[in-house]
Amino acid sequence: MRTLKLVLAYDGTQYVGWQRQENGVSVQQVIEEAFAPLAGGVMPTVAGASRTDAGVHALAQVASVSTEIELPPVAVQRALNVRLPADIRVLAVEDALPGFHARAFATSKAYRYRIATAPVLSPFDRWFVWHHPIPKDVAAMQAAAVALVGRHDFASFQAAGSAVRATVRTIHRLDVREIGGEIVVEVDGDGFLRHMVRAIVGTLADVGAGLRPSASMAATLEARDRRAAGMTAPAAGLTLMAVRY
Amino acid sequence: MRTLKLVLAYDGTQYVGWQRQENGVSVQQVIEEAFAPLAGGVMPTVAGASRTDAGVHALAQVASVSTEIELPPVAVQRALNVRLPADIRVLAVEDALPGFHARAFATSKAYRYRIATAPVLSPFDRWFVWHHPIPKDVAAMQAAAVALVGRHDFASFQAAGSAVRATVRTIHRLDVREIGGEIVVEVDGDGFLRHMVRAIVGTLADVGAGLRPSASMAATLEARDRRAAGMTAPAAGLTLMAVRY
Repeated sequence: MRTLKLVLAYDGTQYVGWQRQENGVSVQQVIEEAFAPLAGGVMPTVAGASRTDAGVHALAQVASVSTEIELPPVAVQRALNVRLPADIRVLAVEDALPGFHARAFATSKAYRYRIATAPVLSPFDRWFVWHHPIPKDVAAMQAAAVALVGRHDFASFQAAGSAVRATVRTIHRLDVREIGGEIVVEVDGDGFLRHMVRAIVGTLADVGAGLRPSASMAATLEARDRRAAGMTAPAAGLTLMAVRY
Repeated sequence: MRTLKLVLAYDGTQYVGWQRQENGVSVQQVIEEAFAPLAGGVMPTVAGASRTDAGVHALAQVASVSTEIELPPVAVQRALNVRLPADIRVLAVEDALPGFHARAFATSKAYRYRIATAPVLSPFDRWFVWHHPIPKDVAAMQAAAVALVGRHDFASFQAAGSAVRATVRTIHRLDVREIGGEIVVEVDGDGFLRHMVRAIVGTLADVGAGLRPSASMAATLEARDRRAAGMTAPAAGLTLMAVRY
């Protein structure tokens, strides 16, 4: 048995998310189905580092798969790219240590979220940004973001109804910048609860629009209640940028 | 009667091109149908400066329309954007001099063409570049491009079977550059024959790949025969960048 590490980029627009689901086509399913013919028809389990939501994109998702196939990594990459649709690409394949698991072994992940504030949204951005055409105070958003950096209980930013009870995570970096007429939020942390990045962005957008003071974040964290934070920003604006081990 | 000038951006992926056609939905038709309700149901003719092909994009197409409507330009813009799909956006509307015609009055147009040469195409570029994963000599392409700048008979670069007999055009600028791992061709001229930019790009790609000497362009022009030039590069890589008056 051999473990392969895959680095993947995908446009998540057409998928129900990374993880296999009954209600539609997932990125995981498409990759597993492309892999099976290489493994003599045996459907493998491809584990992704991040369970990206429906409509969320990846520039460098990492996945692992245990397999008996003997092809060299570059041949696996080529064979998968031939079989995969153009909205999913394998950027690299390498042999990992036996037992490597993309999700369990990840030490940090980085995400980027794009908010377009101009009145008219570029047609080229429509699947990749949140169009929220309200002027925003970026300095206030950055000041609010600082309070979230570090080790905190992020229960207030977890999807309502989530069963996860261990809600403490560490955010290493959370930057809000204005780049080329859009607001870009970059976040790097040891792990993220379901919808956590999007709830943080929705809350920071409230701060930017003046609907919530930038000093309110400590209280929002303390509430440990999803209703204390802002809306969950739309999936389209979110991209998984990197996974570190 | 009043003449409006519209500036439009569109992702051309889903359209048969700018111009109305029997065989599918055109950008022109969609805009005219969005305009009609504003004009009491009268379907106007919206003239585009460039007849972009199926799959070709625009960052700033210019169009003109004669109409009896009395709305201020910014209200026309808003009303159109509400009605139009997200892959077509009206960036600006202004009153033009009566009789203004976007195509007839244009003095020059600028296009950009993107070629991705890396082995794996980013999923985010799949509708916006030509994936031609063969290493290219950009300096040779630029040297070849120089021979096309100026006033020439571009019959060799006109779509085969085109009925247009007046095939002399002036290219003001034709630059080939490597930007972030892709080759970008930028061209600016007083007018372009059908498929002319794409045939130029296909021919320059041959030069870049070493299939055609960079000194061959003068002879290619002189041949006045479509077969003398290279292939017509795919539509997806092409974007109309600007129209000048």
